[in-house]
Amino acid sequence: MTLLVVGSVALDSVFTPFGETADALGGSAVHFAVAASLLHPVRVVGIVGEDYPVAQLERLAPRGIDWSGVEKVPGESFRWKGKYSYDLQSRETLETRLGVFADFRPKLPPGAKAAKYVFLGNIDPELQLSVLDQVSDPKLVACDTMNYWIQSKRDTLMQLLKRVDMLMVNDSEARELSGDWNIHRAGRWILDRGPKRVVIKQGEFGALLIEPGRTFHIPAYPLEEVFDPTGAGDAFAGGFMGYLAREDATDTDHLRRAMVYGAAMGSYSVSGFDVKGFEGVSSADLEERVRHFVDLTNIPRAERIG
Amino acid sequence: MTLLVVGSVALDSVFTPFGETADALGGSAVHFAVAASLLHPVRVVGIVGEDYPVAQLERLAPRGIDWSGVEKVPGESFRWKGKYSYDLQSRETLETRLGVFADFRPKLPPGAKAAKYVFLGNIDPELQLSVLDQVSDPKLVACDTMNYWIQSKRDTLMQLLKRVDMLMVNDSEARELSGDWNIHRAGRWILDRGPKRVVIKQGEFGALLIEPGRTFHIPAYPLEEVFDPTGAGDAFAGGFMGYLAREDATDTDHLRRAMVYGAAMGSYSVSGFDVKGFEGVSSADLEERVRHFVDLTNIPRAERIG
Repeated sequence: MTLLVVGSVALDSVFTPFGETADALGGSAVHFAVAASLLHPVRVVGIVGEDYPVAQLERLAPRGIDWSGVEKVPGESFRWKGKYSYDLQSRETLETRLGVFADFRPKLPPGAKAAKYVFLGNIDPELQLSVLDQVSDPKLVACDTMNYWIQSKRDTLMQLLKRVDMLMVNDSEARELSGDWNIHRAGRWILDRGPKRVVIKQGEFGALLIEPGRTFHIPAYPLEEVFDPTGAGDAFAGGFMGYLAREDATDTDHLRRAMVYGAAMGSYSVSGFDVKGFEGVSSADLEERVRHFVDLTNIPRAERIG
Repeated sequence: MTLLVVGSVALDSVFTPFGETADALGGSAVHFAVAASLLHPVRVVGIVGEDYPVAQLERLAPRGIDWSGVEKVPGESFRWKGKYSYDLQSRETLETRLGVFADFRPKLPPGAKAAKYVFLGNIDPELQLSVLDQVSDPKLVACDTMNYWIQSKRDTLMQLLKRVDMLMVNDSEARELSGDWNIHRAGRWILDRGPKRVVIKQGEFGALLIEPGRTFHIPAYPLEEVFDPTGAGDAFAGGFMGYLAREDATDTDHLRRAMVYGAAMGSYSVSGFDVKGFEGVSSADLEERVRHFVDLTNIPRAERIG
């Protein structure tokens, strides 16, 4: 079951109270792929400039990441520079240089067109639609977006929503898209516009899976140390989609378990800068963390409950 | 198993985007008692002025609330006036008039001294200590506090912490008390100062039960309509303590189930102004809502999970 992600492959410079990085591996497709590959092989489609340290990507290939769909073209790679507040609750973008990403026109290699599980990372909704046109018969398509596209390409985004199975966004994005501050009403508003499911990520407060008439909540892993929130949402998506691709299933029970894998990946992601939080994480570690989530949320049964 | 709450009995005037109240039933002890009484009889100790509509309290007595420990003295009752933001995420205090509450010196009636389950609502920690001095042999004492006491009576509060089994506060209060923005470190900091357990309430994001080496999270009930957050935390405490008193148990499994009852009561509380969210709520309704929480958090088991 081919798992495909289309998104940014970037160089991030991040400042937090606990340290900083310069031109480190970043971008939605990279964070997604590193997480997903703990569960299932993943193909990446993206674009980089001639300055990209492709060798660093290739070093991750043995995990099961196929970078062959990442085009290398003349020019500068996408760069993002940001600074987080003392409590990591907010961040300021210091610089965005699109470089070759500005002319990104995703072209799927033959093998990627047969992908069954597709994640459309946060890129221009027109490009997300063009990816959908190239995929022959997907079983589950999930997409992300951001406030910039909600404001500047709303009509295209609404077209996209009609064609995806799932929207996976932050709570602030769900609120902005729907125009409703109540997150459950916002979720229902989105369900009414196409997707059969909505995942709303709430950072340190976990994430919601909203389906018609039924909601599931997974908390974030209780971490006493958080170093860098960058990419946590994409790592969540990677865990979520990686689990579904591995199990080749899209029913509610599997989606709920996929939420746990997503939350686990989010917790690894924030535990280190760029993708370092995943260093040394084995499948056994992941399964243990997943079991920890089961305990974290477990309501012990009793005669008069449940 | 006597359940006792000591706290404020107030008249609240609340403005929200959805309506307003004037001199309506309020105060921590009132919100606590109305919620707890759905599960177990509850005794209230507090103080009101001659202007208090005691008949309105008495109308709630058939639920199993014993108001006989509420002293009536000459003067004005405690009044609070507040205004919520459009999304109910923040509020501004417009007026606080302590009235007779300023001279409150809790004096437990004989029956209350034998209380086994004791909730010390948010009052001066000196008074909370004086209540503890009057209780003969409690099985579980939980207490609340607020930023005002954390700032003005820190030493007394730290003495109190050594003598209670559980602190139950908002996340902002846990952060201020510990001086740590990471909520899990803040929880551990509190555990190191006396209480064996900490409950940290996170509003629309649910609540955490932090024990040494183990954490439990319960989300908030997914509500599409929220009218008035006032008293939700006290209603949570009422559900939590009411369940423990009913079951007469304080082990981890019961505490986790108590968290569910607390969250259920919080959801009723915010669904109406003052205590109106509880009108018409039966035990059967409550049990159904509790079962809904079980589904909301249920991670379906699979061979490779759990």
